[in-house]
Amino acid sequence: MTFDPATLTFDQNGLIPCIAQEAETGEVLMLAWMNAEAVARTLETGRVTYWSRSRQAFWIKGESSGHVQTLVELRLDCDRDCLLALVQQTGPACHTNRRSCFYTALRDGQETEIMTPLRDA
Amino acid sequence: MTFDPATLTFDQNGLIPCIAQEAETGEVLMLAWMNAEAVARTLETGRVTYWSRSRQAFWIKGESSGHVQTLVELRLDCDRDCLLALVQQTGPACHTNRRSCFYTALRDGQETEIMTPLRDA
Repeated sequence: MTFDPATLTFDQNGLIPCIAQEAETGEVLMLAWMNAEAVARTLETGRVTYWSRSRQAFWIKGESSGHVQTLVELRLDCDRDCLLALVQQTGPACHTNRRSCFYTALRDGQETEIMTPLRDA
Repeated sequence: MTFDPATLTFDQNGLIPCIAQEAETGEVLMLAWMNAEAVARTLETGRVTYWSRSRQAFWIKGESSGHVQTLVELRLDCDRDCLLALVQQTGPACHTNRRSCFYTALRDGQETEIMTPLRDA
């Protein structure tokens, strides 16, 4: 049976969280949200496509920045209410120009920056 | 300045998603939710503690199953609206007895099980 995005469990806003993980290194890059159509577009195009909650619009990751995410494999969890996208990330995933959005660690009770912005090519 | 969980961005239900990742292997194990108090308890105890949306109660991961998550490091993302917990997972993270909740991959348009349940020790 062909997978149907409508069989996923969406929240009250019709969204499901999607974790993006670099396929090769295992680094967790970011978390963003998809609606059913974004899931379908991601699978169809191989370009990871989110739903921007702030802009209320589809968000083809990297469309303006060039920092695209090429889909390697999409996985779903046991409750069907979270997705894991294994991707090949071009450049930084974060809008701060860092490789990952998770660049702040809590160490000794303090917020500690563990990643610096990438330099432009 | 000591980190204060109240400075995180919580959703309309007072919750923030937390990705659990095995610290040693980089495997993404699960995603669950925390409120500010769960974040504080996780940091204080070193035992990853979520907020169960179904039970509306604190959920010390593994408290009944023994499949605990020992916190290695907690990180937050650029928007302060998602957490990444690096953990040492004892046994399976998933209630289906699989190592990770993300055991279903979409391959050739089909849902494909890529992980089998662990056998009891």
